[in-house]
Amino acid sequence: MRLGIDIGGTKTDAVAVDEVGGLAQRVRLVTGFGHAAVVETAVTAVARIGELTGLPAGGFSSIGIGIPGMVDSASGQVAHAVNLGVERLALGGELAGRLGVGVRIENDVKAAALGAFHVLGLGGTMAYLNLGTGMAAGIVVDGRLWRGATGIAGEIGHLPVDPAGALCGCGQRGCLETVASGSGIARQWRTDDPLPARALFAAAADGDREARAITARLAEGIAAAVRVLVLTVDVDTVVIGGGLSHLGDRLLCEVHEVLDGWAATSPFLASVALSRRVRLVPEGTPVAALGAALVGGADG
Amino acid sequence: MRLGIDIGGTKTDAVAVDEVGGLAQRVRLVTGFGHAAVVETAVTAVARIGELTGLPAGGFSSIGIGIPGMVDSASGQVAHAVNLGVERLALGGELAGRLGVGVRIENDVKAAALGAFHVLGLGGTMAYLNLGTGMAAGIVVDGRLWRGATGIAGEIGHLPVDPAGALCGCGQRGCLETVASGSGIARQWRTDDPLPARALFAAAADGDREARAITARLAEGIAAAVRVLVLTVDVDTVVIGGGLSHLGDRLLCEVHEVLDGWAATSPFLASVALSRRVRLVPEGTPVAALGAALVGGADG
Repeated sequence: MRLGIDIGGTKTDAVAVDEVGGLAQRVRLVTGFGHAAVVETAVTAVARIGELTGLPAGGFSSIGIGIPGMVDSASGQVAHAVNLGVERLALGGELAGRLGVGVRIENDVKAAALGAFHVLGLGGTMAYLNLGTGMAAGIVVDGRLWRGATGIAGEIGHLPVDPAGALCGCGQRGCLETVASGSGIARQWRTDDPLPARALFAAAADGDREARAITARLAEGIAAAVRVLVLTVDVDTVVIGGGLSHLGDRLLCEVHEVLDGWAATSPFLASVALSRRVRLVPEGTPVAALGAALVGGADG
Repeated sequence: MRLGIDIGGTKTDAVAVDEVGGLAQRVRLVTGFGHAAVVETAVTAVARIGELTGLPAGGFSSIGIGIPGMVDSASGQVAHAVNLGVERLALGGELAGRLGVGVRIENDVKAAALGAFHVLGLGGTMAYLNLGTGMAAGIVVDGRLWRGATGIAGEIGHLPVDPAGALCGCGQRGCLETVASGSGIARQWRTDDPLPARALFAAAADGDREARAITARLAEGIAAAVRVLVLTVDVDTVVIGGGLSHLGDRLLCEVHEVLDGWAATSPFLASVALSRRVRLVPEGTPVAALGAALVGGADG
Protein backbone atom coordinates (compact mmCIF):
# COMPACT_ATOMS: atom_id res chain seq x y z
CA MET A 1 0.00 0.00 0.00
CA ARG A 2 1.26 3.50 -0.93
CA LEU A 3 0.24 6.76 0.68
CA GLY A 4 -0.20 10.01 -1.22
CA ILE A 5 -0.97 13.48 0.12
CA ASP A 6 -1.93 16.58 -1.85
CA ILE A 7 -1.47 19.69 0.27
CA GLY A 8 -3.63 22.37 -1.32
CA GLY A 9 -4.13 26.03 -0.47
CA THR A 10 -7.25 25.32 1.62
CA LYS A 11 -7.79 21.53 1.63
CA THR A 12 -5.47 18.56 1.90
CA ASP A 13 -6.34 15.26 0.23
CA ALA A 14 -4.78 12.02 1.42
CA VAL A 15 -5.19 8.62 -0.19
CA ALA A 16 -4.05 5.05 0.24
CA VAL A 17 -3.36 3.30 -3.07
CA ASP A 18 -3.30 -0.47 -3.39
CA GLU A 19 -0.81 -2.60 -5.33
CA VAL A 20 -2.69 -2.22 -8.64
CA GLY A 21 -3.02 1.56 -8.32
CA GLY A 22 -6.60 1.56 -7.04
CA LEU A 23 -7.92 4.08 -4.51
CA ALA A 24 -8.23 2.18 -1.20
CA GLN A 25 -8.88 5.00 1.28
CA ARG A 26 -9.30 8.76 1.15
CA VAL A 27 -9.51 11.56 3.72
CA ARG A 28 -9.78 15.34 3.42
CA LEU A 29 -8.41 17.84 5.94
CA VAL A 30 -8.22 21.60 6.25
CA THR A 31 -4.67 22.72 5.41
CA GLY A 32 -2.83 24.59 8.14
CA PHE A 33 -1.08 27.90 7.36
CA GLY A 34 2.62 28.42 7.91
CA HIS A 35 5.64 26.12 8.22
CA ALA A 36 4.70 24.27 11.42
CA ALA A 37 1.00 23.93 10.53
CA VAL A 38 1.80 22.51 7.06
CA VAL A 39 4.07 19.87 8.61
CA GLU A 40 1.34 19.12 11.16
CA THR A 41 -1.26 18.75 8.41
CA ALA A 42 0.87 16.13 6.67
CA VAL A 43 1.52 14.25 9.92
CA THR A 44 -2.22 14.25 10.70
CA ALA A 45 -3.03 13.01 7.18
CA VAL A 46 -0.64 10.08 7.61
CA ALA A 47 -2.22 9.28 10.98
CA ARG A 48 -5.78 9.44 9.60
CA ILE A 49 -4.96 7.17 6.65
CA GLY A 50 -3.12 4.96 9.12
CA GLU A 51 -6.30 4.59 11.21
CA LEU A 52 -8.33 3.67 8.11
CA THR A 53 -5.82 1.14 6.80
CA GLY A 54 -4.46 -0.12 10.11
CA LEU A 55 -0.93 0.68 8.92
CA PRO A 56 1.76 2.72 10.73
CA ALA A 57 3.77 5.24 8.68
CA GLY A 58 6.47 2.62 8.19
CA GLY A 59 3.91 0.14 6.89
CA PHE A 60 3.44 1.89 3.54
CA SER A 61 5.74 0.98 0.67
CA SER A 62 6.08 4.71 0.00
CA ILE A 63 4.75 8.07 1.14
CA GLY A 64 4.64 10.97 -1.31
CA ILE A 65 3.46 14.55 -1.01
CA GLY A 66 2.38 17.02 -3.65
CA ILE A 67 2.61 20.67 -2.64
CA PRO A 68 2.45 23.99 -4.49
CA GLY A 69 5.55 26.08 -5.04
CA MET A 70 9.10 25.41 -6.13
CA VAL A 71 9.97 21.88 -5.04
CA ASP A 72 13.40 20.28 -5.11
CA SER A 73 12.31 16.65 -5.23
CA ALA A 74 15.86 15.42 -4.62
CA SER A 75 16.24 17.24 -1.29
CA GLY A 76 12.58 17.55 -0.26
CA GLN A 77 12.88 21.36 -0.04
CA VAL A 78 9.83 23.52 -0.74
CA ALA A 79 10.07 27.25 -1.56
CA HIS A 80 7.61 30.04 -2.40
CA ALA A 81 4.41 28.12 -1.53
CA VAL A 82 2.79 31.50 -0.97
CA ASN A 83 -0.79 30.29 -0.39
CA LEU A 84 0.45 28.00 2.39
CA GLY A 85 2.48 30.70 4.12
CA VAL A 86 5.65 28.76 3.30
CA GLU A 87 8.70 30.68 2.17
CA ARG A 88 11.34 27.95 2.57
CA LEU A 89 10.69 24.61 4.27
CA ALA A 90 12.69 21.35 4.41
CA LEU A 91 9.43 19.40 4.31
CA GLY A 92 11.02 16.07 3.39
CA GLY A 93 13.49 16.26 6.25
CA GLU A 94 10.94 17.52 8.79
CA LEU A 95 8.51 14.72 7.96
CA ALA A 96 11.21 12.06 7.98
CA GLY A 97 12.02 13.21 11.52
CA ARG A 98 8.39 13.14 12.64
CA LEU A 99 7.36 9.92 10.89
CA GLY A 100 10.56 7.91 11.04
CA VAL A 101 10.34 7.07 7.32
CA GLY A 102 11.41 8.77 4.09
CA VAL A 103 8.85 10.97 2.35
CA ARG A 104 9.02 12.05 -1.30
CA ILE A 105 8.08 15.65 -2.06
CA GLU A 106 6.92 16.81 -5.47
CA ASN A 107 5.30 19.90 -6.95
CA ASP A 108 1.51 19.45 -6.86
CA VAL A 109 0.99 19.98 -10.59
CA LYS A 110 3.64 17.39 -11.40
CA ALA A 111 2.05 14.96 -8.91
CA ALA A 112 -1.37 15.56 -10.48
CA ALA A 113 0.11 14.95 -13.93
CA LEU A 114 1.38 11.56 -12.83
CA GLY A 115 -1.94 10.76 -11.16
CA ALA A 116 -3.96 11.74 -14.24
CA PHE A 117 -1.72 9.66 -16.50
CA HIS A 118 -2.39 6.56 -14.39
CA VAL A 119 -6.07 7.22 -13.63
CA LEU A 120 -6.81 7.69 -17.35
CA GLY A 121 -4.78 4.63 -18.29
CA LEU A 122 -2.73 6.65 -20.78
CA GLY A 123 0.44 5.66 -22.60
CA GLY A 124 3.02 7.66 -24.52
CA THR A 125 3.36 11.34 -23.71
CA MET A 126 0.88 13.49 -21.81
CA ALA A 127 0.69 17.04 -20.54
CA TYR A 128 -1.53 17.88 -17.57
CA LEU A 129 -2.58 21.51 -18.01
CA ASN A 130 -3.38 22.86 -14.57
CA LEU A 131 -5.75 25.83 -14.59
CA GLY A 132 -5.79 27.01 -11.00
CA THR A 133 -4.91 30.44 -9.68
CA GLY A 134 -2.14 30.30 -12.24
CA MET A 135 -1.41 28.11 -15.26
CA ALA A 136 1.28 25.44 -15.46
CA ALA A 137 1.65 22.05 -17.08
CA GLY A 138 3.11 18.77 -15.85
CA ILE A 139 4.58 16.52 -18.52
CA VAL A 140 4.64 12.72 -18.28
CA VAL A 141 6.65 10.60 -20.72
CA ASP A 142 6.05 6.85 -20.74
CA GLY A 143 4.66 7.02 -17.22
CA ARG A 144 7.47 9.09 -15.72
CA LEU A 145 7.60 12.79 -14.90
CA TRP A 146 9.58 14.99 -17.26
CA ARG A 147 11.17 17.56 -14.95
CA GLY A 148 13.55 19.15 -17.44
CA ALA A 149 17.07 20.38 -16.83
CA THR A 150 16.23 22.71 -13.93
CA GLY A 151 12.74 21.65 -12.85
CA ILE A 152 10.82 24.35 -14.75
CA ALA A 153 9.48 22.20 -17.61
CA GLY A 154 5.82 23.03 -18.21
CA GLU A 155 5.91 26.63 -16.89
CA ILE A 156 3.99 27.70 -19.98
CA GLY A 157 1.67 30.08 -18.09
CA HIS A 158 4.39 32.69 -18.50
CA LEU A 159 4.64 32.48 -22.28
CA PRO A 160 3.40 35.79 -23.71
CA VAL A 161 1.09 35.58 -26.73
CA ASP A 162 -0.02 39.20 -27.05
CA PRO A 163 2.27 42.26 -26.82
CA ALA A 164 -0.89 44.34 -26.14
CA GLY A 165 -2.08 42.01 -23.38
CA ALA A 166 -2.37 42.63 -19.64
CA LEU A 167 0.66 43.01 -17.40
CA CYS A 168 1.41 39.69 -15.68
CA GLY A 169 2.66 39.27 -12.12
CA CYS A 170 5.86 37.82 -13.60
CA GLY A 171 6.76 41.19 -15.13
CA GLN A 172 5.92 40.27 -18.72
CA ARG A 173 2.89 41.34 -20.74
CA GLY A 174 0.20 39.15 -22.31
CA CYS A 175 1.22 35.85 -20.69
CA LEU A 176 -1.16 32.89 -21.20
CA GLU A 177 -1.86 33.03 -17.46
CA THR A 178 -3.31 36.55 -17.72
CA VAL A 179 -6.31 35.20 -19.65
CA ALA A 180 -6.42 31.44 -18.94
CA SER A 181 -6.33 31.02 -15.16
CA GLY A 182 -8.36 31.76 -12.06
CA SER A 183 -6.36 34.92 -11.40
CA GLY A 184 -6.89 35.99 -15.01
CA ILE A 185 -10.65 35.65 -14.59
CA ALA A 186 -10.59 37.43 -11.22
CA ARG A 187 -8.75 40.40 -12.75
CA GLN A 188 -11.29 40.75 -15.58
CA TRP A 189 -14.54 39.80 -13.82
CA ARG A 190 -15.22 41.30 -10.40
CA THR A 191 -17.74 39.30 -8.39
CA ASP A 192 -18.52 38.36 -4.80
CA ASP A 193 -19.61 34.89 -5.94
CA PRO A 194 -17.58 32.20 -4.12
CA LEU A 195 -17.24 30.41 -7.50
CA PRO A 196 -16.20 33.28 -9.81
CA ALA A 197 -15.62 31.09 -12.89
CA ARG A 198 -19.11 29.53 -12.62
CA ALA A 199 -20.62 32.99 -12.16
CA LEU A 200 -18.73 34.18 -15.22
CA PHE A 201 -19.96 31.30 -17.37
CA ALA A 202 -23.53 31.79 -16.10
CA ALA A 203 -23.37 35.48 -17.07
CA ALA A 204 -21.96 34.54 -20.48
CA ALA A 205 -24.78 32.04 -20.98
CA ASP A 206 -27.23 34.84 -20.10
CA GLY A 207 -25.78 36.91 -22.92
CA ASP A 208 -23.54 39.33 -20.96
CA ARG A 209 -21.18 40.64 -23.64
CA GLU A 210 -18.28 41.34 -21.30
CA ALA A 211 -18.59 37.85 -19.76
CA ARG A 212 -18.66 36.33 -23.22
CA ALA A 213 -15.50 38.19 -24.22
CA ILE A 214 -13.73 36.96 -21.08
CA THR A 215 -14.75 33.32 -21.60
CA ALA A 216 -13.68 33.60 -25.25
CA ARG A 217 -10.25 34.84 -24.18
CA LEU A 218 -10.09 32.04 -21.59
CA ALA A 219 -10.84 29.38 -24.21
CA GLU A 220 -8.35 30.95 -26.65
CA GLY A 221 -5.67 31.01 -23.97
CA ILE A 222 -6.24 27.35 -23.12
CA ALA A 223 -6.21 26.47 -26.82
CA ALA A 224 -2.95 28.40 -27.22
CA ALA A 225 -1.46 26.41 -24.32
CA VAL A 226 -2.48 23.18 -26.04
CA ARG A 227 -0.83 24.43 -29.25
CA VAL A 228 2.41 25.18 -27.37
CA LEU A 229 2.46 21.74 -25.75
CA VAL A 230 1.76 19.90 -29.02
CA LEU A 231 4.06 21.90 -31.32
CA THR A 232 6.94 21.86 -28.82
CA VAL A 233 6.77 18.50 -27.01
CA ASP A 234 4.26 16.77 -29.33
CA VAL A 235 2.25 15.21 -26.50
CA ASP A 236 -0.40 12.63 -27.43
CA THR A 237 -2.81 14.01 -24.87
CA VAL A 238 -3.44 17.26 -23.02
CA VAL A 239 -5.49 16.69 -19.87
CA ILE A 240 -7.11 19.85 -18.52
CA GLY A 241 -7.19 19.90 -14.73
CA GLY A 242 -7.15 22.30 -11.80
CA GLY A 243 -9.94 24.46 -10.39
CA LEU A 244 -11.25 25.70 -13.75
CA SER A 245 -11.67 22.11 -14.98
CA HIS A 246 -14.75 21.91 -12.71
CA LEU A 247 -16.48 23.99 -15.40
CA GLY A 248 -16.54 20.68 -17.23
CA ASP A 249 -17.93 20.26 -20.71
CA ARG A 250 -18.90 23.93 -20.99
CA LEU A 251 -15.20 24.77 -20.87
CA LEU A 252 -14.07 21.83 -22.99
CA CYS A 253 -16.60 22.63 -25.72
CA GLU A 254 -15.39 26.22 -25.96
CA VAL A 255 -11.78 25.04 -26.20
CA HIS A 256 -12.70 22.51 -28.88
CA GLU A 257 -14.54 25.25 -30.80
CA VAL A 258 -11.46 27.45 -30.80
CA LEU A 259 -9.20 24.59 -31.90
CA ASP A 260 -11.61 23.48 -34.62
CA GLY A 261 -11.85 27.07 -35.85
CA TRP A 262 -8.06 27.26 -36.10
CA ALA A 263 -7.94 23.95 -37.98
CA ALA A 264 -10.49 25.33 -40.46
CA THR A 265 -8.19 28.24 -41.38
CA SER A 266 -4.83 26.47 -41.07
CA PRO A 267 -4.19 23.19 -42.93
CA PHE A 268 -1.02 22.88 -40.85
CA LEU A 269 -2.93 23.03 -37.56
CA ALA A 270 -5.57 20.70 -38.99
CA SER A 271 -2.82 18.18 -39.76
CA VAL A 272 -1.61 18.11 -36.15
CA ALA A 273 -5.12 17.38 -34.82
CA LEU A 274 -5.01 19.56 -31.69
CA SER A 275 -8.70 19.13 -30.88
CA ARG A 276 -8.69 15.36 -30.59
CA ARG A 277 -5.74 15.46 -28.18
CA VAL A 278 -7.58 17.43 -25.46
CA ARG A 279 -9.66 15.99 -22.63
CA LEU A 280 -10.75 16.85 -19.10
CA VAL A 281 -9.45 15.24 -15.93
CA PRO A 282 -12.20 13.02 -14.40
CA GLU A 283 -14.32 15.12 -12.03
CA GLY A 284 -13.97 14.24 -8.35
CA THR A 285 -10.86 12.08 -8.69
CA PRO A 286 -8.02 13.18 -6.38
CA VAL A 287 -5.38 12.94 -9.12
CA ALA A 288 -2.77 14.97 -7.23
CA ALA A 289 -2.96 12.77 -4.12
CA LEU A 290 -2.97 9.63 -6.28
CA GLY A 291 0.01 10.93 -8.22
CA ALA A 292 1.81 11.84 -5.00
CA ALA A 293 1.48 8.19 -3.96
CA LEU A 294 3.24 7.18 -7.18
CA VAL A 295 5.98 9.85 -7.22
CA GLY A 296 9.45 8.44 -7.18
CA GLY A 297 8.25 4.85 -7.39
CA ALA A 298 8.75 2.47 -10.28
CA ASP A 299 5.76 4.13 -11.96
CA GLY A 300 6.71 7.68 -11.30
CA MET B 1 33.20 4.05 -39.95
CA ARG B 2 29.75 5.66 -40.36
CA LEU B 3 28.51 7.64 -43.33
CA GLY B 4 26.22 10.67 -43.05
CA ILE B 5 24.64 12.72 -45.82
CA ASP B 6 22.82 16.04 -45.51
CA ILE B 7 20.73 16.69 -48.61
CA GLY B 8 20.11 20.45 -48.69
CA GLY B 9 18.10 22.60 -51.07
CA THR B 10 21.16 23.47 -53.15
CA LYS B 11 24.16 21.59 -51.69
CA THR B 12 24.62 18.11 -50.30
CA ASP B 13 27.20 17.44 -47.59
CA ALA B 14 28.54 13.93 -47.04
CA VAL B 15 30.89 12.86 -44.27
CA ALA B 16 32.60 9.77 -42.96
CA VAL B 17 32.73 9.61 -39.17
CA ASP B 18 35.22 7.45 -37.31
CA GLU B 19 34.59 5.25 -34.26
CA VAL B 20 35.05 8.13 -31.78
CA GLY B 21 32.74 10.48 -33.70
CA GLY B 22 35.49 12.43 -35.46
CA LEU B 23 35.15 13.81 -39.00
CA ALA B 24 37.28 11.53 -41.22
CA GLN B 25 36.24 12.64 -44.72
CA ARG B 26 33.92 15.24 -46.23
CA VAL B 27 32.61 15.99 -49.72
CA ARG B 28 30.14 18.55 -51.07
CA LEU B 29 27.92 18.07 -54.11
CA VAL B 30 25.26 20.04 -55.91
CA THR B 31 21.84 18.60 -55.02
CA GLY B 32 19.75 17.31 -57.92
CA PHE B 33 16.12 18.40 -58.27
CA GLY B 34 13.25 15.92 -58.35
CA HIS B 35 12.79 12.35 -57.14
CA ALA B 36 15.31 10.58 -59.41
CA ALA B 37 17.96 13.30 -59.09
CA VAL B 38 17.73 13.33 -55.28
CA VAL B 39 18.26 9.56 -55.19
CA GLU B 40 21.18 9.95 -57.62
CA THR B 41 22.73 12.66 -55.46
CA ALA B 42 22.70 10.33 -52.45
CA VAL B 43 24.16 7.43 -54.46
CA THR B 44 26.93 9.70 -55.81
CA ALA B 45 27.69 10.96 -52.30
CA VAL B 46 28.10 7.39 -51.05
CA ALA B 47 30.40 6.60 -54.00
CA ARG B 48 32.53 9.73 -53.45
CA ILE B 49 32.97 9.03 -49.74
CA GLY B 50 33.65 5.41 -50.73
CA GLU B 51 36.54 6.55 -52.95
CA LEU B 52 38.03 8.67 -50.17
CA THR B 53 37.77 5.97 -47.51
CA GLY B 54 38.28 2.91 -49.71
CA LEU B 55 35.03 1.45 -48.37
CA PRO B 56 32.08 0.07 -50.36
CA ALA B 57 28.56 1.02 -49.24
CA GLY B 58 28.35 -2.20 -47.24
CA GLY B 59 31.62 -1.40 -45.50
CA PHE B 60 30.15 1.36 -43.31
CA SER B 61 28.62 0.41 -39.97
CA SER B 62 25.68 2.66 -40.85
CA ILE B 63 24.52 5.12 -43.49
CA GLY B 64 22.16 7.93 -42.51
CA ILE B 65 20.58 10.75 -44.48
CA GLY B 66 19.15 14.06 -43.32
CA ILE B 67 16.66 15.65 -45.70
CA PRO B 68 14.13 18.50 -45.46
CA GLY B 69 10.41 17.82 -45.31
CA MET B 70 8.20 15.40 -43.45
CA VAL B 71 10.21 12.27 -42.80
CA ASP B 72 8.90 8.98 -41.49
CA SER B 73 12.13 7.62 -40.06
CA ALA B 74 10.61 4.18 -39.49
CA SER B 75 9.70 3.64 -43.15
CA GLY B 76 12.23 5.93 -44.85
CA GLN B 77 9.45 7.89 -46.56
CA VAL B 78 9.98 11.59 -47.36
CA ALA B 79 7.09 13.96 -48.13
CA HIS B 80 6.74 17.68 -48.97
CA ALA B 81 10.45 18.38 -49.50
CA VAL B 82 9.38 21.30 -51.67
CA ASN B 83 12.84 22.81 -52.29
CA LEU B 84 14.04 19.45 -53.62
CA GLY B 85 11.08 18.94 -55.94
CA VAL B 86 10.05 15.94 -53.84
CA GLU B 87 6.37 15.43 -53.11
CA ARG B 88 6.47 11.83 -51.90
CA LEU B 89 9.54 9.58 -52.12
CA ALA B 90 10.40 6.21 -50.56
CA LEU B 91 14.01 7.33 -50.22
CA GLY B 92 15.02 4.63 -47.75
CA GLY B 93 13.67 1.87 -49.95
CA GLU B 94 15.08 3.33 -53.18
CA LEU B 95 18.55 3.68 -51.70
CA ALA B 96 18.49 0.22 -50.15
CA GLY B 97 17.77 -1.10 -53.63
CA ARG B 98 20.58 0.91 -55.24
CA LEU B 99 23.20 0.42 -52.53
CA GLY B 100 22.37 -3.04 -51.28
CA VAL B 101 22.44 -1.86 -47.65
CA GLY B 102 19.92 -0.29 -45.28
CA VAL B 103 19.88 3.51 -45.07
CA ARG B 104 18.33 5.54 -42.23
CA ILE B 105 16.39 8.64 -43.21
CA GLU B 106 15.77 11.54 -40.83
CA ASN B 107 14.50 15.10 -41.08
CA ASP B 108 17.49 17.41 -41.63
CA VAL B 109 16.80 19.62 -38.60
CA LYS B 110 16.59 16.58 -36.34
CA ALA B 111 19.82 15.21 -37.84
CA ALA B 112 21.52 18.57 -37.28
CA ALA B 113 20.29 18.59 -33.68
CA LEU B 114 21.93 15.24 -33.06
CA GLY B 115 25.11 16.39 -34.79
CA ALA B 116 25.30 19.63 -32.80
CA PHE B 117 24.76 17.76 -29.52
CA HIS B 118 27.75 15.50 -30.25
CA VAL B 119 30.02 18.13 -31.83
CA LEU B 120 29.54 20.44 -28.85
CA GLY B 121 30.04 17.58 -26.38
CA LEU B 122 26.77 18.40 -24.63
CA GLY B 123 24.90 16.35 -22.06
CA GLY B 124 21.35 16.55 -20.72
CA THR B 125 18.74 18.19 -22.88
CA MET B 126 19.34 20.41 -25.89
CA ALA B 127 17.26 22.15 -28.54
CA TYR B 128 18.76 22.95 -31.92
CA LEU B 129 16.93 26.04 -33.19
CA ASN B 130 17.16 25.99 -36.97
CA LEU B 131 16.77 29.41 -38.59
CA GLY B 132 16.63 28.68 -42.29
CA THR B 133 13.88 29.56 -44.73
CA GLY B 134 11.57 28.62 -41.88
CA MET B 135 12.03 28.05 -38.15
CA ALA B 136 11.94 24.68 -36.42
CA ALA B 137 13.74 23.06 -33.51
CA GLY B 138 15.19 19.59 -33.01
CA ILE B 139 15.24 18.33 -29.44
CA VAL B 140 17.86 15.92 -28.07
CA VAL B 141 17.47 14.26 -24.67
CA ASP B 142 20.47 12.43 -23.22
CA GLY B 143 21.97 12.07 -26.69
CA ARG B 144 18.82 10.74 -28.39
CA LEU B 145 16.32 12.54 -30.62
CA TRP B 146 13.00 13.44 -29.05
CA ARG B 147 10.53 12.93 -31.88
CA GLY B 148 7.32 13.26 -29.89
CA ALA B 149 4.09 11.32 -30.32
CA THR B 150 3.59 12.12 -34.02
CA GLY B 151 6.98 13.44 -35.17
CA ILE B 152 6.13 17.15 -34.91
CA ALA B 153 8.04 17.96 -31.71
CA GLY B 154 9.94 21.24 -32.17
CA GLU B 155 7.63 22.78 -34.80
CA ILE B 156 7.70 26.01 -32.82
CA GLY B 157 8.01 28.25 -35.88
CA HIS B 158 4.22 28.10 -36.10
CA LEU B 159 3.53 29.36 -32.59
CA PRO B 160 1.86 32.77 -32.88
CA VAL B 161 3.09 35.46 -30.51
CA ASP B 162 1.32 38.52 -31.89
CA PRO B 163 -2.36 38.70 -32.95
CA ALA B 164 -1.46 41.83 -34.95
CA GLY B 165 1.47 40.13 -36.70
CA ALA B 166 1.90 39.18 -40.35
CA LEU B 167 -0.09 36.39 -41.97
CA CYS B 168 1.98 33.18 -42.03
CA GLY B 169 2.01 30.62 -44.82
CA CYS B 170 0.51 28.16 -42.34
CA GLY B 171 -2.71 30.16 -42.18
CA GLN B 172 -2.12 31.67 -38.74
CA ARG B 173 -1.10 35.23 -37.90
CA GLY B 174 2.03 36.41 -36.07
CA CYS B 175 3.89 33.07 -35.99
CA LEU B 176 7.50 33.16 -34.75
CA GLU B 177 8.56 32.19 -38.27
CA THR B 178 7.11 35.41 -39.73
CA VAL B 179 9.81 37.46 -37.98
CA ALA B 180 12.59 35.00 -37.10
CA SER B 181 13.49 33.14 -40.30
CA GLY B 182 14.95 33.71 -43.73
CA SER B 183 11.49 33.95 -45.28
CA GLY B 184 10.49 36.42 -42.57
CA ILE B 185 13.44 38.65 -43.46
CA ALA B 186 12.76 38.30 -47.20
CA ARG B 187 9.16 39.43 -46.70
CA GLN B 188 10.19 42.53 -44.79
CA TRP B 189 13.45 43.50 -46.52
CA ARG B 190 13.49 43.45 -50.32
CA THR B 191 16.98 43.17 -51.74
CA ASP B 192 18.82 41.67 -54.71
CA ASP B 193 21.76 40.84 -52.45
CA PRO B 194 22.53 37.10 -52.62
CA LEU B 195 22.93 37.17 -48.82
CA PRO B 196 19.82 39.12 -47.73
CA ALA B 197 20.38 38.68 -43.98
CA ARG B 198 23.93 40.02 -44.20
CA ALA B 199 22.71 42.94 -46.30
CA LEU B 200 20.00 43.60 -43.70
CA PHE B 201 22.48 43.62 -40.82
CA ALA B 202 24.86 45.85 -42.78
CA ALA B 203 22.04 48.33 -43.39
CA ALA B 204 21.08 48.18 -39.71
CA ALA B 205 24.71 48.86 -38.73
CA ASP B 206 24.66 51.86 -41.09
CA GLY B 207 21.71 53.24 -39.17
CA ASP B 208 18.83 52.36 -41.51
CA ARG B 209 15.79 52.60 -39.24
CA GLU B 210 13.70 50.05 -41.12
CA ALA B 211 16.58 47.55 -41.12
CA ARG B 212 17.06 48.10 -37.40
CA ALA B 213 13.39 47.45 -36.74
CA ILE B 214 13.56 44.19 -38.72
CA THR B 215 16.69 42.96 -36.95
CA ALA B 216 15.10 43.87 -33.62
CA ARG B 217 12.03 41.80 -34.48
CA LEU B 218 14.30 38.97 -35.62
CA ALA B 219 16.19 38.96 -32.32
CA GLU B 220 12.95 39.19 -30.34
CA GLY B 221 11.49 36.27 -32.29
CA ILE B 222 14.56 34.13 -31.65
CA ALA B 223 14.48 35.10 -27.97
CA ALA B 224 10.79 34.16 -27.84
CA ALA B 225 11.63 30.77 -29.36
CA VAL B 226 14.27 30.26 -26.66
CA ARG B 227 11.69 31.17 -24.01
CA VAL B 228 9.22 28.61 -25.44
CA LEU B 229 11.85 25.86 -25.47
CA VAL B 230 13.03 26.57 -21.92
CA LEU B 231 9.63 27.13 -20.26
CA THR B 232 8.08 24.10 -21.99
CA VAL B 233 10.84 21.47 -22.26
CA ASP B 234 13.38 23.10 -19.92
CA VAL B 235 16.36 22.42 -22.17
CA ASP B 236 19.83 23.08 -20.75
CA THR B 237 21.04 24.52 -24.03
CA VAL B 238 19.56 26.14 -27.13
CA VAL B 239 21.96 25.94 -30.07
CA ILE B 240 21.17 28.38 -32.86
CA GLY B 241 21.85 26.92 -36.29
CA GLY B 242 20.68 27.13 -39.88
CA GLY B 243 21.40 29.76 -42.52
CA LEU B 244 20.87 32.78 -40.25
CA SER B 245 23.42 31.42 -37.75
CA HIS B 246 26.12 32.51 -40.24
CA LEU B 247 25.42 36.05 -38.99
CA GLY B 248 27.43 34.86 -36.01
CA ASP B 249 28.07 36.98 -32.96
CA ARG B 250 26.17 39.95 -34.39
CA LEU B 251 23.02 37.86 -34.18
CA LEU B 252 23.88 36.18 -30.89
CA CYS B 253 24.63 39.53 -29.22
CA GLU B 254 21.24 40.93 -30.26
CA VAL B 255 19.47 37.83 -28.91
CA HIS B 256 21.41 38.05 -25.64
CA GLU B 257 20.47 41.75 -25.38
CA VAL B 258 16.78 40.92 -25.74
CA LEU B 259 16.97 38.10 -23.18
CA ASP B 260 18.95 40.22 -20.72
CA GLY B 261 16.42 43.04 -21.14
CA TRP B 262 13.59 40.65 -20.32
CA ALA B 263 15.44 39.36 -17.26
CA ALA B 264 15.86 42.95 -16.06
CA THR B 265 12.08 43.49 -16.01
CA SER B 266 10.97 39.97 -14.99
CA PRO B 267 12.46 38.35 -11.87
CA PHE B 268 10.82 35.13 -13.03
CA LEU B 269 12.64 35.18 -16.38
CA ALA B 270 15.85 36.21 -14.61
CA SER B 271 15.53 33.12 -12.39
CA VAL B 272 15.38 30.76 -15.39
CA ALA B 273 18.56 32.21 -16.92
CA LEU B 274 17.54 32.14 -20.58
CA SER B 275 20.56 34.11 -21.77
CA ARG B 276 23.21 31.74 -20.48
CA ARG B 277 21.50 28.76 -22.17
CA VAL B 278 21.93 30.10 -25.73
CA ARG B 279 24.88 29.53 -28.04
CA LEU B 280 25.68 29.34 -31.75
CA VAL B 281 26.45 26.19 -33.69
CA PRO B 282 30.17 26.14 -34.62
CA GLU B 283 30.64 27.89 -37.99
CA GLY B 284 31.67 25.62 -40.84
CA THR B 285 30.92 22.32 -39.09
CA PRO B 286 28.60 20.05 -41.11
CA VAL B 287 26.40 19.23 -38.11
CA ALA B 288 23.51 17.85 -40.18
CA ALA B 289 25.73 15.39 -42.08
CA LEU B 290 27.51 14.42 -38.85
CA GLY B 291 24.17 13.92 -37.15
CA ALA B 292 22.87 11.89 -40.10
CA ALA B 293 25.80 9.53 -39.57
CA LEU B 294 24.67 9.03 -35.97
CA VAL B 295 20.90 8.74 -36.57
CA GLY B 296 19.44 5.47 -35.45
CA GLY B 297 22.69 4.23 -33.96
CA ALA B 298 23.48 3.67 -30.29
CA ASP B 299 24.13 7.42 -30.02
CA GLY B 300 21.12 8.61 -31.92
